[in-house]
Amino acid sequence: MRKTPIDPDIVVRKIAESGLKSVGNASIREIVKLVSQIEQASGEKFIRMEMGVPGLDCPEIGVNAEIEALKKGVASQYPNMEGLPELKQETSRFIKNFVNIDIKPLGCIPTVGSMQGSMAAIMVANKCNPKKNKTLFIDPGFPVQKLQCKVFGVGIETFDVYNFRGSKLREKLESYFSKGDISSVIYSNPNNPSWVCFTEDELKIIGELATKYDVIIIEDLAYFGMDFRLQIGKPGVAPFQPSVANYTKNYILLISSSKVFSYAGQRLGMIAISDNLFSREFPELEPFFSSSDFGHAIIFGALYALSAGTSHSAQYALAAMFKAASDGKFLFTEGVKPYGKRAEIMKKLFLDNGFYLVYDKDDGKPLADGFYFTINYPGYTGIQLLEELLYYGIGSIALSITGSKREGLRACVSQFHPEQASLLKERLEIFRENHPI
Amino acid sequence: MRKTPIDPDIVVRKIAESGLKSVGNASIREIVKLVSQIEQASGEKFIRMEMGVPGLDCPEIGVNAEIEALKKGVASQYPNMEGLPELKQETSRFIKNFVNIDIKPLGCIPTVGSMQGSMAAIMVANKCNPKKNKTLFIDPGFPVQKLQCKVFGVGIETFDVYNFRGSKLREKLESYFSKGDISSVIYSNPNNPSWVCFTEDELKIIGELATKYDVIIIEDLAYFGMDFRLQIGKPGVAPFQPSVANYTKNYILLISSSKVFSYAGQRLGMIAISDNLFSREFPELEPFFSSSDFGHAIIFGALYALSAGTSHSAQYALAAMFKAASDGKFLFTEGVKPYGKRAEIMKKLFLDNGFYLVYDKDDGKPLADGFYFTINYPGYTGIQLLEELLYYGIGSIALSITGSKREGLRACVSQFHPEQASLLKERLEIFRENHPI
Repeated sequence: MRKTPIDPDIVVRKIAESGLKSVGNASIREIVKLVSQIEQASGEKFIRMEMGVPGLDCPEIGVNAEIEALKKGVASQYPNMEGLPELKQETSRFIKNFVNIDIKPLGCIPTVGSMQGSMAAIMVANKCNPKKNKTLFIDPGFPVQKLQCKVFGVGIETFDVYNFRGSKLREKLESYFSKGDISSVIYSNPNNPSWVCFTEDELKIIGELATKYDVIIIEDLAYFGMDFRLQIGKPGVAPFQPSVANYTKNYILLISSSKVFSYAGQRLGMIAISDNLFSREFPELEPFFSSSDFGHAIIFGALYALSAGTSHSAQYALAAMFKAASDGKFLFTEGVKPYGKRAEIMKKLFLDNGFYLVYDKDDGKPLADGFYFTINYPGYTGIQLLEELLYYGIGSIALSITGSKREGLRACVSQFHPEQASLLKERLEIFRENHPI
Repeated sequence: MRKTPIDPDIVVRKIAESGLKSVGNASIREIVKLVSQIEQASGEKFIRMEMGVPGLDCPEIGVNAEIEALKKGVASQYPNMEGLPELKQETSRFIKNFVNIDIKPLGCIPTVGSMQGSMAAIMVANKCNPKKNKTLFIDPGFPVQKLQCKVFGVGIETFDVYNFRGSKLREKLESYFSKGDISSVIYSNPNNPSWVCFTEDELKIIGELATKYDVIIIEDLAYFGMDFRLQIGKPGVAPFQPSVANYTKNYILLISSSKVFSYAGQRLGMIAISDNLFSREFPELEPFFSSSDFGHAIIFGALYALSAGTSHSAQYALAAMFKAASDGKFLFTEGVKPYGKRAEIMKKLFLDNGFYLVYDKDDGKPLADGFYFTINYPGYTGIQLLEELLYYGIGSIALSITGSKREGLRACVSQFHPEQASLLKERLEIFRENHPI
């Protein structure tokens, strides 16, 4: 009988108890729950790579501003639907300083995490024109954004970007856009889960086609500034966070505080709508959102219906962090560089033990070490590998749930601590012994 | 020329600038914005009755627990989708102590305000059975819940409860339920805007019919314990908050922290699902929410897609307030009794000046003095009166936007301070002079 680091009886039992039809196809949160239950039953700590959670402390600047706001009594007052004026102002300034794009404070609106931002964007973008009722995902991507389309009854198109990098992207996008039913495009950049980053040429292609076909680009900047090959983070100084906003007026940026500010717990993101799109009129919006004005429909239609605003005190936290970053007093990208180091260590251990990288290049250049990387093992599908690694005390998610057409797993580095390196090494060596290539 | 407390040129100009087609039909948040702009331009403070916001300070118990949680660093950690274990536990205990109903902690889930709770309930309840795709509103009601149905594409039925009190309610409800397309019913109790409270007989009728026709009752307890004719608020001791939960297993309770705990700013409510409904299987849910289990679909389908949880620190605040209430250390209903006093003063001033109450009785008994009351003036529609009162420095909303079939206005007492009584008196007297009955 093969030896595994986790008692196989416990793994089998907990999988059965989970009621999941297929562990490999489970959602991220379901895997998180399963891994926690196996940890508890076995008494063994896992190498947890399944969930993209911050693994660093949150900045004191944010926490202190939030505590101060609470002491002033903001908890009793509904936040205004458009957002706290200073947060709107500081978001606009942050975007100018670190993306080099002008967006008026009016179009910068707080949301309950970027999750709510994408929900609102999907809801409104797909009602602007009755012929355009589908969102195209440049995959792989964050599975919950597809769940959002599903629960809201929006059609989905998707392709895996791996085989359509560089100039091939134009033809591929045009094949969808030319059908006339695509309202919007979603992608994250840097990409979750593959950590692929679009080149400027690719962003230009996306922007040009968005203008040509009047499609709204929902650019998810969940990992703002975290392509560590660039040195983003000096206010007003290049390099800036790359963005499609340089190439079209049809865009919405989603800026999360969860990863780059390690502020996931308070569920606060910003949706930033281009000035042009914010004030555009779409008569078809009126019956759904009581307004034909895009910005008004987002705020007083979608966001009002979804939750009537977001935590009042957390808005002060984010305003303070944006302000400190713009003032040059808070080097936010420096704070998350430990993730790059963790990725380097982890990737090496996997590669040393027979695994290989699934997404490995940006149009020819090696990917950065960042928040995620993707791996597989010869002879395995991602779904099989995910389940098998549970017996070795390693949690992950399958690329198949992210819209990837390639087999493998997403590994998130955030909860890995360098002192766990020897444990990971030991477990991967046993895995390799049990699975000779 | 008639004399009005606010310069009519300013009112006319600000209405024009608002771009609203009809001021009287505007949403609550739009009226709030308009009144603020007239206040700013005229330099005159309004008697603001348009928005149901807390007008009291938030309890220190909540604020202190939240600050402590922030100091411990919870801002960096995603809250778990099901909610903080101690909050789930204390919610279950609070419901037992003050509603006298048993709901397991499992079914008590935090939401971004009760607004998100009703959104999730509407989303899932209307997908359990493809034939049942409408929500029935026992009106008048909170307009945003109808907006939620609209943006989510759910059908709406509605009737004004005023003419169907007592035993008449049975026949009226049955006329809808027997058509077979009603999935769910929404009402608030005490009622926003009319402050009508259902009698036990009425709740029994609703519950019995919910069971008979397998309809889910979404009971919005936004004004928990605030029918001041009862003396609710001693843990484990009658009287309890009346609830349909005594009469059916098909229910979802929405418990808000905004009004009774004056904690509106942090956007935290609880959705509490009956044990029976929580674990019920509806195969039709699977394609939308990847699970056929009602509770699982609410948490990992709807709430995950909507925002992936709610402010981590605020969950500690609410847990602490619930705990203190259950321990008998926090007399939460005492804290909001000033609203009853304010209502008494305001109602008298309106009645003294020719106004009359629109909703005036609970099945024969006079309504309580509470958070809202409803008024009208002879010869006016609500929409006309709302606009006319802007010239007199008084903000309100029209009953017509709440699904009421009766003409008049909703007045919220929360932002009125007793020292404003002479100002309100003066303005109402001028109004009366200008509008002889």
